[in-house]
Amino acid sequence: MTRQTDLHFEDFTPGLKIEGRSATLTEADIIDFALRYDPQPFHVDRETAARTNFGGLIASGFQTLAMSWRLLYQTGFLHHGNLGGPGMDEVRWPHALAAGDTLTTSAVVSEVRASTSKPDRGVVKFAVTGVNQRGETVLTATMMIMAKRRQA
Amino acid sequence: MTRQTDLHFEDFTPGLKIEGRSATLTEADIIDFALRYDPQPFHVDRETAARTNFGGLIASGFQTLAMSWRLLYQTGFLHHGNLGGPGMDEVRWPHALAAGDTLTTSAVVSEVRASTSKPDRGVVKFAVTGVNQRGETVLTATMMIMAKRRQA
Repeated sequence: MTRQTDLHFEDFTPGLKIEGRSATLTEADIIDFALRYDPQPFHVDRETAARTNFGGLIASGFQTLAMSWRLLYQTGFLHHGNLGGPGMDEVRWPHALAAGDTLTTSAVVSEVRASTSKPDRGVVKFAVTGVNQRGETVLTATMMIMAKRRQA
Repeated sequence: MTRQTDLHFEDFTPGLKIEGRSATLTEADIIDFALRYDPQPFHVDRETAARTNFGGLIASGFQTLAMSWRLLYQTGFLHHGNLGGPGMDEVRWPHALAAGDTLTTSAVVSEVRASTSKPDRGVVKFAVTGVNQRGETVLTATMMIMAKRRQA
């Protein structure tokens, strides 16, 4: 079986898949996050949200994104090799995540690029996907990680 | 003066600038967010963080991103015209935001595109920038908003 924890730059080969954890997002979690970071009516106000196209409270896209990352990070795939994330591309929310929905995340390595200036590291790109309990896609994104080589 | 609150699709012209609010991110905020959404050592563990290249605790990039959005949203530029955000592109964190740093955000309309299928709305793209109190850029991103026309 392919190693899945404490990965370093040389462990990330295109096609490698990280199966993230799952978690259920409660109404309290959605409102708590949104009051601090994204207080749009359809994230904080159950009555107004019920009258929108969404039909009820939905999670902030920033929360869906951050929770998706957490469910990946929680697997332990990054540890000593982790030098942080320089950015993300093409973040999309095809369906909204509603209160009580369960989010499951996965990531597939799409590209690896050794640093030309720093030989001890490189950038790894992942195609990240979040789905709800009905298999509907609630997030797609390309995330980047700066990873250290094991022998560094 | 250009209207700055409750904007609708026809109000967004390329070059229009939204000056966001400012807020100081405390160490408690950084740790609280990171424990829930991004528990990497340099976001939750002051001692370990001090030994990294960052030299101390830094905010999760997801928090810098969400807080940047909040400081824009808080101006009231979106209200009745707001149909939510379909996605983001090219999210980058050129500098880290540290405990005690003050974040200020701005957004400039970079592109507007009327919907071909739904004549009552269109997509507005913004170049979003977050800076700290020394003027260093801590976030750049392209955010998208689906906006309703005023007469719709």
